[in-house]
Formats: sequence, structure tokens, C-alpha cells
Amino acid sequence: MRPLTPDQLNPAILKVQYAVRGELAIKAEELREKLLDDKHGLPFNKVISSNIGNPQQKGLDQPALTFPRQVAALMEYPPLAELVQGKWPQDVLDRAKELQEHIGSIGAYSHSKGVPFIRKSVAKFIEERDGFPSDPEDIFLTAGASAGVSLILNTLITPNVTGVLIPIPQYPLYTATLAQYSGVALPYHLSEPNGWSTSLEEIETAVAKAEKEGIVPRALVVINPGNPTGAILDKKTMAEVVRLCEKHSLVLLADEVYQANLHRPDTHPFHSFKQVVRELQSPVPLFSFHSISKGVKGECGRRGGYFECTNISDEVRALLYKMASVTLCPPVSGQIALDCLVRPPRPGQPSYEQYKKETDTIHAALRHRTQLMAQRLNSLPGVSCVDSPGALYLYPKIELPDKAIEEAQRQGKSPDTLYALELLEETGICVVPGSGFGQKDGEHHYRLTCLCPGVEEYVSALENFHKKFVAKYGGL
Amino acid sequence: MRPLTPDQLNPAILKVQYAVRGELAIKAEELREKLLDDKHGLPFNKVISSNIGNPQQKGLDQPALTFPRQVAALMEYPPLAELVQGKWPQDVLDRAKELQEHIGSIGAYSHSKGVPFIRKSVAKFIEERDGFPSDPEDIFLTAGASAGVSLILNTLITPNVTGVLIPIPQYPLYTATLAQYSGVALPYHLSEPNGWSTSLEEIETAVAKAEKEGIVPRALVVINPGNPTGAILDKKTMAEVVRLCEKHSLVLLADEVYQANLHRPDTHPFHSFKQVVRELQSPVPLFSFHSISKGVKGECGRRGGYFECTNISDEVRALLYKMASVTLCPPVSGQIALDCLVRPPRPGQPSYEQYKKETDTIHAALRHRTQLMAQRLNSLPGVSCVDSPGALYLYPKIELPDKAIEEAQRQGKSPDTLYALELLEETGICVVPGSGFGQKDGEHHYRLTCLCPGVEEYVSALENFHKKFVAKYGGL
Repeated sequence: MRPLTPDQLNPAILKVQYAVRGELAIKAEELREKLLDDKHGLPFNKVISSNIGNPQQKGLDQPALTFPRQVAALMEYPPLAELVQGKWPQDVLDRAKELQEHIGSIGAYSHSKGVPFIRKSVAKFIEERDGFPSDPEDIFLTAGASAGVSLILNTLITPNVTGVLIPIPQYPLYTATLAQYSGVALPYHLSEPNGWSTSLEEIETAVAKAEKEGIVPRALVVINPGNPTGAILDKKTMAEVVRLCEKHSLVLLADEVYQANLHRPDTHPFHSFKQVVRELQSPVPLFSFHSISKGVKGECGRRGGYFECTNISDEVRALLYKMASVTLCPPVSGQIALDCLVRPPRPGQPSYEQYKKETDTIHAALRHRTQLMAQRLNSLPGVSCVDSPGALYLYPKIELPDKAIEEAQRQGKSPDTLYALELLEETGICVVPGSGFGQKDGEHHYRLTCLCPGVEEYVSALENFHKKFVAKYGGL
Repeated sequence: MRPLTPDQLNPAILKVQYAVRGELAIKAEELREKLLDDKHGLPFNKVISSNIGNPQQKGLDQPALTFPRQVAALMEYPPLAELVQGKWPQDVLDRAKELQEHIGSIGAYSHSKGVPFIRKSVAKFIEERDGFPSDPEDIFLTAGASAGVSLILNTLITPNVTGVLIPIPQYPLYTATLAQYSGVALPYHLSEPNGWSTSLEEIETAVAKAEKEGIVPRALVVINPGNPTGAILDKKTMAEVVRLCEKHSLVLLADEVYQANLHRPDTHPFHSFKQVVRELQSPVPLFSFHSISKGVKGECGRRGGYFECTNISDEVRALLYKMASVTLCPPVSGQIALDCLVRPPRPGQPSYEQYKKETDTIHAALRHRTQLMAQRLNSLPGVSCVDSPGALYLYPKIELPDKAIEEAQRQGKSPDTLYALELLEETGICVVPGSGFGQKDGEHHYRLTCLCPGVEEYVSALENFHKKFVAKYGGL
């Protein structure tokens, strides 16, 4: 028999790239293994995974919030209620009891769109956030935002025909999923000199280019707050984006998973696209994505999130429901965490004080680290960095010595991959090269999360490495 | 702007069908809503969802096993250990501590292939089951077996070129996923008169037909124990299937999620395809799927499972790893339950007695209900039913009166859909028409799970309905 070789496989799968967990992450795993040996001989003692927004991972250890975890423990083992009665806050016990009544066992498949009761809670959360009605039937709970994005793109894309506008830089889920489903990525560049703002002209140019090439632009992806940029859209730009979607009959995909990660909410508030679409009374079809993985909850591992359909017909919604049914249901554990995200403890409730203290501490730490890291990176020679007002990342631009670029060419790597690999090997810090997110030709970036232990020591390591790297390759 | 209509969407998505959660399930939801009204006027008081193998759902209430749930509660909230120390069995506390050391927080993304420690446990479980080595690097943990099947089919299928052999009747995940990825379903019929056995001739015929039509048969799906048939393959047939895969260079997909649901293990034991492939020293590429949703654990809602790669090159495995990375990681809650599935309490450990009692009770109940239901269905006029030795289902064949078939045609439905809809409306019992799984022309079946409360009352309702239905349409 003939063995199974890649040339026999789906060619679309071969084309998929996903840098966040690519070459750097695999190298980081190897180094982590190596560190287990006492005589590892490496110039660091731990690997810090700054490549992925994973707050609770080992070494970062952002603590889980107490309220949702106590509720989750009771959902896992309801007889526990007797043991913790009087020891855990009463609102924890009440919430678990209420959820048990509506869900039954956490071990049963739920409705394929998610538990109806939790979808109602999500709709209420959206109404309170936006000031406009939300219909639970328009809410689909998902295994994280990624699963929702994948479902929507798979549904929208006719292979090799449909184009989807994506920001550059982008979160590589989009290019990966477009490659998987043979959609055509239509990149539009964000403006780094203007704090990674979204330019309508860039989108118009991309639409015109696609149409000229016989590609049908069907959808526009906006990531707000931005990933990897951390930028936050102002309402005026959002309204312009919606009008542009109307003009070109584009479906709007609003990736809003970082909506609770705001470092300067007074000057850089978050507005949802749902709100803007409703304010404009626009008919633009909109899918909005949210997640339990980000914010201050950071419950990545349980895979929870939702998307809301706005201006989507019953017929199209029924198709999405059918496709959701094939995967049976989103993880119930993620659904329960989502309930706690959209219905946190309120002032006056027994868990509130602790909840507020925990979330305030995490917000403050993220804000502090982001600002400090941006400031220190900006003072390095050849490095410039937008001080992100939101999300969990910085995306510094780095000038690299000509000799480093030559060395990268020699190794068959992009120059920022060379930089990131040497950073990892010297310091144990794992970042993602900008080439994974997209950048203009001749530019170099990397993305790092603002999740780290001991930010002073961490940023010093980044600084020392950068200076050494520049010197090693003959200076700028 | 032009509204979003189905004709603009991916045509492949429009073609997907998934009967297990289709028209019948949607109707059942409506009836369940209606029952909330005291004056519902329906001839039953509860809807029984026999359409899906979901043991822990409301109304079926198969109890969750205590050991994995106590471990799960401790993983959710580690400080709980202090409260339950001395109250819960020590092996529960030890297991949770061990898992915490290896996993860290349940809220962190894990390795995309799953927690390495749990993959080692899975490999050990496979070694003990089969008597052949298993490499943890060949194990991918997944969000249930469905997610694994979807990943493998997406990888194997070149759209509109690749054919995949599937048994008829089949679990509709396969036809749905083939439609989603534009693969060509190559059906081979199982032999109902021989207890739904697998016929090599049928497979050869299907291969020959495909080749004649210019389709490349790339893979063969075997569901063992069968779904919906409950049949179990004997080792001789399995060896023949492997040799056939060698002959035609087919990848073997072994759906073995019901491997622990054996009602007559003395006469109908389960053997894995991994074992057979190794015994034959065959080079056939094999993906074997398992799940936490079935067996006696029935933890459907948390979405856990794994697949093992056998005879798969490092290159192809790396591609699968890349694709697994795009979805980030399988739900950690499902991974933990999988650990408890492959490492249950052992004799002598504090949790063992209770674990054994719980699992024995569930096995006995499933066996009893399956046999009783098969026997009673077989004594009905026009009904014949293979007494399944495994899995969770029966798949009775029903003869229908000519007038019922005419009425179905008038309504634009398949005759077994008419039957199932009337059954639901009369009794509240929701089953899936055979047309969703596939059957020979002119035959009619339905699938029902052997999960139900009060089997006597349940089977009487089936009997009464059947007689009434036959009489209503003028008899057989």
C-alpha cells in the first residue's frame, strides 16, 4: 500500500499558517523540556510564554476569579452544597442552584446554540451594554470566539470565490481560517503612525482591488480592541465602517473579545458595533464575537464565548443552527463561566467585595505593565511602540541591522523570526514575529503579551537582549 | 444594501444534513415549551429525547460517576481541598493534586494536542487494552470524538475529488462533515439479516463504483460498536477490512466511541482496530476515535475525547498539530474527565467500591433495557429489530401501511419521518427516522436510544402507538 503523504491531503490545509503557536512556540516547548534537566546550560531558568494571551498559564499565574470558580465547583458536584453551606457566600450557592435548575447536569449535551437560560442572560448583558434590545434567539454560545469565527467564515465562504477584508496586522486566526476554507484574504492596512487607526481609504482600496481581480468581497473583519495592536476604534470611524459595509453589501464581523481590557477608558472607551449599527438604523448584517478567555476572567482553557447575529434573517440563522448541531454543543463548563461573565456579583451581594477587589487588581496590573513596557520599549534605539489603550498586547516596530537581515535571509527566515528566536534562546521569552500578523514590506515587528511576572526584570531582559542583538549584527 | 440570503453562502453548507438534531428534535423542543403551560392539552406529560445518546440529560438522569466529578470540583476550585479533606476519599484528593501539578489552572489553554501528562495516561490505557505500545505523541485530545473526525476529514478531503467509504446506516456526522468539506460519500451497506454485519463485498463494490466515476477513495469509516446498529465486528472481519485498506491504499477511520458499551461481552467482545493492525503488522494508516460522552460515563456536555494516529508519518502528524493549534486547545474540563476515564479507581483504592457499584449498575440497566426493548419490538406486527450487543441504540425496521406511505408523499416527507413525527405527537417520545442514517430503498427504520426512565411504561407507549398508527392507515 502507498503510505499517506502530505501531497495526498487537502491542499488548503497545507497552506494554513498559524504563527501564534508556530515555530517559536514549538521551540519554547523544547526549551521548557530542557530546563527540567539540572545541567541544562541555558542562560535562563524559565520560559515565559508571551506569545499567547493565556493569563492563567503556569509562570504567569493570573489568579482565577473566586466567584465563577466556586459556582463551577458546585456545578461539577452538586452534593458539595451541603459541605460549603455557610462557608461560601450565599450568592454562590444560589447561582449554582439556579443554573442547575435550568441546565440539569453539566455532563449532558445542551441545546446546540447553548443553554436557553444562559442565552437570555447574554441578551440582557448586551441590552445593558448597548441600550438596544437583544434577542436570545440571535445568540449562539460557542467554544470560544474562535469556534464562532470559524463557523461564520465557513458559512460565508464559497471556496476560491469569496473575499474577506481583514486588517493588517491581524490575529492569524483569520488568515488561517480563510486558508482552511479557501477564502480569499483581502488585506487592508491599519495606520501605525496614527496609533493603528482604521483607514476607510485603505478598505476602499482593498475592495476595488478585489473587484478588479474577480473576487467577491463578502465580509469585513474588524478587531476592536485590536489584536495585536491594542487600538480602540472611535465611534465616528465605526459609523463610517458601517456605512462602507452598506455601500458594498458587506457582512461585518466584529471581533470584540477584548472589550473589557481597557487601560484608559476615559479617553478610549469601547463601543460595540451592535450599538453603532442600531444607532444608525443600519441594515448591515453583523456578527459580534465575545469570549470568556480574555477580559480579567482569562478562562481560556474551558472554551467559552458567544456570537450575536444582528440583521440576520431567520433562514440564515437556521443554517447556522444546523451547523452548530453537527458539533453537538459548546462545552457546558464554558457556558457556565459565560453566565458568570455576563452576570457578575452586583454591589450588595455577598461575593461583590471580593469580586471587585480581584478584578480591580488585575485591571490595574495590566494597565501598569502595558504602560511601563511601552515606555521602556520606546526608549530603546530603533524600537517604536504604540502604547496600547486596550487588549493584552504590544506590537513594537523594530529596526534591524542590515547584517541581521542578511543572516535571516541566509537561514531562510524572516528577519523578525530571527530576532524572536534569538530572544527566546537568550532570555526564555517567547514572542511572535510580526510576519505572523502581517506588516508592510521591509518593516519588522513582534507581538508580546502584557502578561508577565515581575515586569521590571522582564522588561530589562528585553532591553538587554535588544542592545546585544543590535551590537552583534554591527549596529543600526 | 443587499440583505444576506442563503444563495450568497457556501453551497456546501446548504447541502449539510444532520437528522439527529433535525426536524424531530426541533419539534420536540416546541412540545417541551408547550408542556410548561398547564393547559397544554397534549396526550403526554413529558418529552423523552430518545433521539440522541445523552445519558445525563433531564428526564433520563443517568447519574454522573462520583469519582470524576469530585476530581473535577477540586480542579475548579483547588482551595476546596481543605474543606473536603477527610470527607472525600483520599484518592480523589491525590488525583486532583497530581493533575494540578501537571496542568496548572483549568482556566489556562493547554498544549494544543492536550496536556502531555494526560496524553501519557491515554497511551498507557491503550497499551493495556491492546497489548501493543502507544506513543503519547500519536495522541491528540479533542473536544469529543466529533471534533477529531471533523479535523481528520477536513485534512483528508480534497474538495470534490476525495471519496470516503461510509457504512449505511451511518451516524450522520459522517455525511454532514463530508458535505461540509465537499467530500464524496461512498456508501457501503451493512447486512441487516446478518445482524448488521460488515460485508467486504459491499466495500469492494463501492470502491469499484467510485473508481469508475473518477472519485479517489481515500478513506474507510468503520463504526464499531455500530451506530445506529449496535453491531460489533469480529476479529476475522476486522482483519479482512485491514487487508482491504492495504489493497486500496485506504486510510482507516475507526470510530470506537462505544467500546465500553458491551451488553454481551462473552460472545461479542470488542477489539480495537489498533490491535488488529499491529497483530497483522499492517502499514495501514489508522485514526482511532474515543470519547468521554458514551460508555457509562456519559459526560457529553464537557466535550472530551481523543484520537490516536497509527502508521501516520511525522510530517502528516505535524500538519494535524498545526490545525489543532488554530482551535487553540480542547476543553481542559473534558481532558480531566478523559484522565479519569483512562485511569479509573483501581481495586484497593478508596473510591473503587463506589465506582464499581455505580458503573455496574449503569451497565446492567443498559443491558436490561436493550434486551427488553428489542424483544418487545420484535413481537410487534411489521417490526423487526436486531438485538444490539453493543452501543446505546436499537434500529428497528418497520413495515408501513401503503396509505401511510401515500400520506407521507402528500406531505413531502419520508414515510419514517411521518411515523416519527406522529410518535412524538402522540407519546412525547422523540426518535430519529432511518432516512437520517441511510437505508435501502423502500425500507423504513428509526433509531432510538436505550436510555429511558421506566422502560416498561416506555416500551408500552411505543407498542400502543405502533398498533394505532398501523390501524389508522388501514393496516399492513
